[in-house]
Amino acid sequence: MSILNRIKSPADVKALSADELEELAGEIRHFLVEKVSATGGHLGPNLGVVELTLAVHRVFDSPKDPIIFDTSHQSYVHKILTGRSEDFDNLRQKGGLSGYTCRAESEHDWTESSHASAALSYADGLAKAFQIKGETDRQAVVIVGDGALTGGMCWEALNNIAAGKDRNVVIIVNDNGRSYSPTIGGFADNLADLRMQPFYDRVMEHGKTTLKSMGWVGERTFEALHAFKEGVKSTVIPTEMFPELGMKYVGPVNGHNLKAIEAALRYARDYNGPIIVHAVTEKGRGYAPAENDVAELMHSTGVINPKTGEPVGTKSPGWTSVFSKELVAVGGERSDIVAITAAMAGPTGLSAFGKAYPERFFDVGIAEQHALTSAAGLALGGLHPVVAIYSTFLNRAFDQLLMDVSLLGLPVTIVLDRAGVTGSDGASHNGVWDMSLAGIIPGIRVAAPRDGEQLVEQFREALEIESPTIVRFPKGNLPAVIEEKERLADGVDILFYQDEETLSDDAPSVLVVACGAMAQPAVAVAEGLVNDGLDVTVVDPRWVVPIAPSLVAMADDHDLVVTVEDGVIHGGVGSMLNEALNAAGVDTPVRNIAFPELFPLHASRGELMAEVGLDEAGIAESIRGWAQELFGEESLSEDPADIDDTEDTADTPDEVPAQ
Amino acid sequence: MSILNRIKSPADVKALSADELEELAGEIRHFLVEKVSATGGHLGPNLGVVELTLAVHRVFDSPKDPIIFDTSHQSYVHKILTGRSEDFDNLRQKGGLSGYTCRAESEHDWTESSHASAALSYADGLAKAFQIKGETDRQAVVIVGDGALTGGMCWEALNNIAAGKDRNVVIIVNDNGRSYSPTIGGFADNLADLRMQPFYDRVMEHGKTTLKSMGWVGERTFEALHAFKEGVKSTVIPTEMFPELGMKYVGPVNGHNLKAIEAALRYARDYNGPIIVHAVTEKGRGYAPAENDVAELMHSTGVINPKTGEPVGTKSPGWTSVFSKELVAVGGERSDIVAITAAMAGPTGLSAFGKAYPERFFDVGIAEQHALTSAAGLALGGLHPVVAIYSTFLNRAFDQLLMDVSLLGLPVTIVLDRAGVTGSDGASHNGVWDMSLAGIIPGIRVAAPRDGEQLVEQFREALEIESPTIVRFPKGNLPAVIEEKERLADGVDILFYQDEETLSDDAPSVLVVACGAMAQPAVAVAEGLVNDGLDVTVVDPRWVVPIAPSLVAMADDHDLVVTVEDGVIHGGVGSMLNEALNAAGVDTPVRNIAFPELFPLHASRGELMAEVGLDEAGIAESIRGWAQELFGEESLSEDPADIDDTEDTADTPDEVPAQ
Repeated sequence: MSILNRIKSPADVKALSADELEELAGEIRHFLVEKVSATGGHLGPNLGVVELTLAVHRVFDSPKDPIIFDTSHQSYVHKILTGRSEDFDNLRQKGGLSGYTCRAESEHDWTESSHASAALSYADGLAKAFQIKGETDRQAVVIVGDGALTGGMCWEALNNIAAGKDRNVVIIVNDNGRSYSPTIGGFADNLADLRMQPFYDRVMEHGKTTLKSMGWVGERTFEALHAFKEGVKSTVIPTEMFPELGMKYVGPVNGHNLKAIEAALRYARDYNGPIIVHAVTEKGRGYAPAENDVAELMHSTGVINPKTGEPVGTKSPGWTSVFSKELVAVGGERSDIVAITAAMAGPTGLSAFGKAYPERFFDVGIAEQHALTSAAGLALGGLHPVVAIYSTFLNRAFDQLLMDVSLLGLPVTIVLDRAGVTGSDGASHNGVWDMSLAGIIPGIRVAAPRDGEQLVEQFREALEIESPTIVRFPKGNLPAVIEEKERLADGVDILFYQDEETLSDDAPSVLVVACGAMAQPAVAVAEGLVNDGLDVTVVDPRWVVPIAPSLVAMADDHDLVVTVEDGVIHGGVGSMLNEALNAAGVDTPVRNIAFPELFPLHASRGELMAEVGLDEAGIAESIRGWAQELFGEESLSEDPADIDDTEDTADTPDEVPAQ
Repeated sequence: MSILNRIKSPADVKALSADELEELAGEIRHFLVEKVSATGGHLGPNLGVVELTLAVHRVFDSPKDPIIFDTSHQSYVHKILTGRSEDFDNLRQKGGLSGYTCRAESEHDWTESSHASAALSYADGLAKAFQIKGETDRQAVVIVGDGALTGGMCWEALNNIAAGKDRNVVIIVNDNGRSYSPTIGGFADNLADLRMQPFYDRVMEHGKTTLKSMGWVGERTFEALHAFKEGVKSTVIPTEMFPELGMKYVGPVNGHNLKAIEAALRYARDYNGPIIVHAVTEKGRGYAPAENDVAELMHSTGVINPKTGEPVGTKSPGWTSVFSKELVAVGGERSDIVAITAAMAGPTGLSAFGKAYPERFFDVGIAEQHALTSAAGLALGGLHPVVAIYSTFLNRAFDQLLMDVSLLGLPVTIVLDRAGVTGSDGASHNGVWDMSLAGIIPGIRVAAPRDGEQLVEQFREALEIESPTIVRFPKGNLPAVIEEKERLADGVDILFYQDEETLSDDAPSVLVVACGAMAQPAVAVAEGLVNDGLDVTVVDPRWVVPIAPSLVAMADDHDLVVTVEDGVIHGGVGSMLNEALNAAGVDTPVRNIAFPELFPLHASRGELMAEVGLDEAGIAESIRGWAQELFGEESLSEDPADIDDTEDTADTPDEVPAQ
């Protein structure tokens, strides 16, 4: 690893010879396999952009020229080249290197959100700023996957970038034919055609060119191309969509040929105006286990054996697999059930349904807006669509959920995986906004199942409802099933109450409203709180939106109400219960345990839950503290019972998010 | 109006002769000018689609074939042809005809949201449903403006529609070169090229055709075109982007030539697979005042003189004009101020800034997502962007505000016009979600100015803040300026408190927290409530997000806290104050007056405010009721003082929204 050890900044990359570069590329691949197999992470995408990233840093002048990585899970090589190789042992660990670009880590990182298709818009803004400020020597550089181009934001941005003919935006399309799984749609078909039919073939076909050697696209080629551009405009270039936008297009170029890609980028750098460089790469390149993983090319992995690519440890069935199995079952029973994914059939558990009922399965690409509104169309057509999506990506389709689905009151069921705290993927992957968003949508109903059995039961309930529903569940292993002691008429489950004889009559009564996966820690600490002298009842609302009437009635009968949820505090279930109690004139004190108002740094799910007080210890401590404030020190016994803190602090290794 | 009187359903349109159709088109134009000039509405767009809509109803079989109007403000002709002409005297009035498609009105209406660019996604879903259910004789028909095609949703949908080669979706692009104002961007340039350079010219230019008469594009032309399609594919068709998606494209066709457009639609109907019909129309066609309104072609009007097109009544300066003027002033003082609109420079007041500082003004098209994220890019580049947008359209960019702007803590100021209740444009134009959305975004600050003076002051404060800010204000006339009695250290204004001598010492104390424009009615009713025996204090938080510490302290000193806001109740300012009080252990009863959880029907702003209890009478009644419940009947004097209900119940005639 002699060359890699010398690389501390992009300047070091610029100084290398062609041979040294090739050697460095090999070292980086070896380094990535070794490090990422130990920590988990986005291995395949980074193996695919080794040469591309080297070329970018040789040609452009970061950070003067901002390099914006769309989604940024493919920024590992960039991190290596900008002085962060020594931190890879702690990749995605608490306090360690982020799995995405991160401004606190380096001046070479500009953005942090992992949501796809946004990078072009950033670049348009940056280029406009450079123009206004007269910083004419700066270039805004974007690296975007072909999969992300299916997202509407890219189209909005391209339309604007194309109109800025005097601004320097270099868009590098990293075309590996993949988003998470193979990219779909008409646009993808067109890119595929391009890949299949080499550029020079198409030129020759029209008999209008004398260009010969186009195995790689170099300086001379571009010059030649430029010279006769006008003449062939209608025959060679128009089979692209980019020139239709009035934008210069270069490619396709082999993204693993260092000389070729560097030449293309130099041309792009020196071109005045927006330009697209179409680089064809192979995800997982150079690592046999990834190249052989046909479905996903090892897009993201947990901890693996670096030699075989096989996961280390065993995978226990999680929330996703319970949903996946049930969806297939329901699909067999009801012909009106259709399923929609936004380019994430595997991680959301839809693949099995897609295999069983391909005619009722739609992968719309990375296009959450279209996922929701086309589901509305399917519902208008008489079907019951199930849209499976990560909770955080629902944010992209809030307006569509509100205006296109819910305003019409259509029977669309949205299944939100990775709801609540996710942790290791950083701030933008946490699914903590869904309940607050749903709360402001008239008529929608939200189920938060507490375990696998409830997931099955509530998912089936949702499919019987002829209006919009959401079923949300977290990342991670399934908790043990918690049987209810009683189910109330409006569906609320009573999970725990104290035995009559164990408490004094004047023990303060506390109603704990625990949502979804928060039922497990709430029930776990209840006994201890009873031993402390509190008359504790734990209920699971099951359907958390709208507020069940029985919760209001029960609140009126208690001395304190505590809500526990793994979503943001503002506008969440606790917040809605506050409002319901206010409206009913019930003035029992309420306290809310929820995700605080912050963008958390990456850490494991368990670490983050503990940090924000959503683990057993935190919940017990909060309730004890409030009881002391409200009912006096003497209301609680002196020594709190030991809390058994069994909250899972390890990430499920095989559940690294995909986008 | 003899023919128009006979039209009760599409079947009647199908029965007409060519001459009768031309006559009917004239009658409809006359009818539209007469009716819409009396009520206000989207006159220009509907004058532009008279022939197009006639042809659609002759060729397709509504409602078996769903006709989906994007935004649907251009559905007046459709309403006339589907039996609703007699209701036009009450267009956009409470209990009358909606200005958009409305399922309660007719089986011919399928959708209701007025947000642009969504129709293609609905159609994709409908076509998928028809395919799954084997309803092969049904077609999903979309009418979408060229302006809406700049929205990312359209791109997501086109990409999916194109992939469904065996599904029947007919996309009619109503190309008038306009969204609200002229459509911008690379895509628009390309459409403009198409319009300028007739189809046959381009074909001739390549010397590969024998087609002669293409003045209108009819059956024979299509057959001829089809026959030699393969031969010319690369020379004729590729200058379109649609075929790049693998989609059949037809046009451009003269959208005012009944014979031509009907022939094109018949071809499209009989074509197997998705197809685009490109119809060129003229907004405002046939009405001189509209045709002469170069900037906006009378996109939407208030009540006008039908002969001259001049507004009836005088326009008083509103919120928008105060903002508009101040933005120009700030632009002169600070070179880092840039302004962004999403195709609505006029209605949001940005035109003046655009004229004064064109190099710092960006119209991104109907593309709210890009508006926000390109603003983030501008901020990363060292500028302070001001994004001016209708409150309801911010819903389209929630994820971008959260992830692209706020996660990075960038200094972007979003100015939300038409915040709160808007009324006559129906459910989807009300701006009642913004405060709840902002509440769940860490670090963002929201100003709700109560009057024009505060708008100026708080807008300037926002521009001094180096992190994300929102300034929101409603539709309608400016209220009179309310001077504060005192400004607290954290910026909260005390607007009203009772004189010491007027009340008994044991009068229950009520703290009224009135947000933004709700300060006016709250102050107006305060005196009456004091006369009723309540010790009333009215405060305006000014910055409503986050909750000011002084509100918590004051709440602790009162017997009842009442919040008043013109946003949805869940997650709004009242909700956030509830949470802040809970967190601080302040258990003073709180009651929230806010917009209820419903999608309201259209009515004037004043009517709707009264209906949901947000007018003076409603606010006073709520507070009196709660005081009675909490403090007993005897706490209030017997005869409530007369409430002066001066809430404006008329819409500002010249403020009809644009999209």
